[in-house]
Amino acid sequence: MSGTSFDHTTLGQRVLFGSRAAVENTARAAGDLGARRLLVISGRSSVQAAEDVAGALPVVARIGEVVQHVPADRVEAAVALARESGADLVLTIGGGSATGLGKAVALRTGAPLVAVPTTFSGSEATDVWGITTDGTKRTGSDPRVLPRAVVYDAALTLGLPRDAVAASSLNAVAHAVDGFWAPRADPINRALGTEGLRALVPALQALADGRDDLGVREELLYGAHLTAVAFASAGSGLHHKVCHVLGGAFGLPHAPMHAAVLPHVTAFNAPAAPEAAARVSALFGGLPAASALQQLHASLGGPLALRDLGLAEADLPRAVELVLPSAPASNPRPVDAAALAELLHAAWAGDPVPDRGAQS
Amino acid sequence: MSGTSFDHTTLGQRVLFGSRAAVENTARAAGDLGARRLLVISGRSSVQAAEDVAGALPVVARIGEVVQHVPADRVEAAVALARESGADLVLTIGGGSATGLGKAVALRTGAPLVAVPTTFSGSEATDVWGITTDGTKRTGSDPRVLPRAVVYDAALTLGLPRDAVAASSLNAVAHAVDGFWAPRADPINRALGTEGLRALVPALQALADGRDDLGVREELLYGAHLTAVAFASAGSGLHHKVCHVLGGAFGLPHAPMHAAVLPHVTAFNAPAAPEAAARVSALFGGLPAASALQQLHASLGGPLALRDLGLAEADLPRAVELVLPSAPASNPRPVDAAALAELLHAAWAGDPVPDRGAQS
Repeated sequence: MSGTSFDHTTLGQRVLFGSRAAVENTARAAGDLGARRLLVISGRSSVQAAEDVAGALPVVARIGEVVQHVPADRVEAAVALARESGADLVLTIGGGSATGLGKAVALRTGAPLVAVPTTFSGSEATDVWGITTDGTKRTGSDPRVLPRAVVYDAALTLGLPRDAVAASSLNAVAHAVDGFWAPRADPINRALGTEGLRALVPALQALADGRDDLGVREELLYGAHLTAVAFASAGSGLHHKVCHVLGGAFGLPHAPMHAAVLPHVTAFNAPAAPEAAARVSALFGGLPAASALQQLHASLGGPLALRDLGLAEADLPRAVELVLPSAPASNPRPVDAAALAELLHAAWAGDPVPDRGAQS
Repeated sequence: MSGTSFDHTTLGQRVLFGSRAAVENTARAAGDLGARRLLVISGRSSVQAAEDVAGALPVVARIGEVVQHVPADRVEAAVALARESGADLVLTIGGGSATGLGKAVALRTGAPLVAVPTTFSGSEATDVWGITTDGTKRTGSDPRVLPRAVVYDAALTLGLPRDAVAASSLNAVAHAVDGFWAPRADPINRALGTEGLRALVPALQALADGRDDLGVREELLYGAHLTAVAFASAGSGLHHKVCHVLGGAFGLPHAPMHAAVLPHVTAFNAPAAPEAAARVSALFGGLPAASALQQLHASLGGPLALRDLGLAEADLPRAVELVLPSAPASNPRPVDAAALAELLHAAWAGDPVPDRGAQS
């Protein structure tokens, strides 16, 4: 790394990790923050988990239903409830939507946030918030929205069906891989992303082989945490810019879309990013990075083609037009309209990715 | 890691890394903290560096001489100067003694700290402070003493002689290795420590082979940062407890003592910590961990025996007595007086370490 220069910001956060220890660890995290009045936010599918986790804590208010993309009216209601109840800590139990609402409340009220994730979204490891008004999502980053503590308990994910686990974990893989060539990629976030992949890839291979137990879920949860930390630091690369447009303009489902797009962006960038490609390749016994990722996705049964996720071929020119201005200037390979059209068409059709690029 | 549980705290910190960029990066770090009145602390050997780095910044006070172990009277004088001058930022440029005084001022005044290290001590990556009164050093950890930003510029280390670089970098190696079996060892700090060793070990081997250029210094600085982060999180293992006693009670020189002791603690623990031993071993092409560390130290010309650093054989029984109560209960191998006497005698004599224990 001779000649390397970087500007890396590590976000300070406590992580309590332990299966079937969420009750005890949440009590410890909240207690160490001096909390006496908790606002508990959970999704419907996590209501029981929320009762278990917060059962013995001083709860002053509860929200038991959350909506995707953090609608502004839900934020207003939650902020009002936090203020009326005098909450001094926001505790979220659930997936990205519960964490997202908690972040918005923390942003507006300044109350500290403790997150107990029940999925692999990784939102709890970032200082990024988003609030949707009239169909438009504003996003930003702010130190107040970073959970002060995260409590990981793999047993809380056991209710998630295997397919959702696979898609959500492949999304976590994308956090690491796209981070390798993202605008703020540096040796520290690359190391964290690689370590996350070292946990995620074998656990996903176990899942593909039909093994799905608490140990596998622990590996996925741990790996997803590290890749989210890496992603928060490295920023969005080309893959996330593509997915942001496809999700926002065409409403494709988040995690399956990420899983389908990643091999194509990897195939596109690999020849110009041999070090990143070699990192991925090494985790698959030397298979070329892009095809290894696509094979993993196929072995987990995911739809490889965006057309099977609701994208029409007629939408592709508009998708190219929308992605092009947001393609990172720092992408290792220059992105022009023709190359992007080719990439998006291949992802739409679910073509096998070419095996070009570096191998380990 | 099935069944793993841990409680990990990541310390939030900005790291600006770039050779010959200290002036620009320090200005950016101080500017982003809104600083308008700087107290600059540097050691004598860093006076020129301090003038270069802070030349264009709004400096209101300077301290150009620091003393090892942060004597309390120096702290009083520096705190008084910070208050009289209305300093709103403490900027340190130098080794562990300059950083240490800056931390004490930050602790007492609450002013934010920016550190520009010129050695490989790693103090700038921790929230640990120490102040010495009448020969006794009080230590503690406090979020206020963690530098808000660290500016690494390998060119600032070029004035350090090679032997000092070798000893200081071997001390950084000890941060990682001892962290593998320290009381708060967890998968995250193990990963960071391992990544630090991936930079340190080849760079130290290059140094042993007679190469010593800016690229080598960059690798050492980057690796020392990561192993210090890992150490701050994992805490002191047996090795640091031994060295704390030998340094405190018998006045052995810090870095060379660490380099001499580490292989012996590694040989002692390796049979009971096969995963840690394998991590080290893998970085030396599969050589047994303890002897690989000792060979590296020998190839750098360091004295292998504590008797060559000033420890008398007659001191050994008292050293055993002092170390025993502080040996971590969580050490992978139980520590009793007989085992400790054997370990310390071997380190005193500089015996070749046995090749028992796990290999990769």
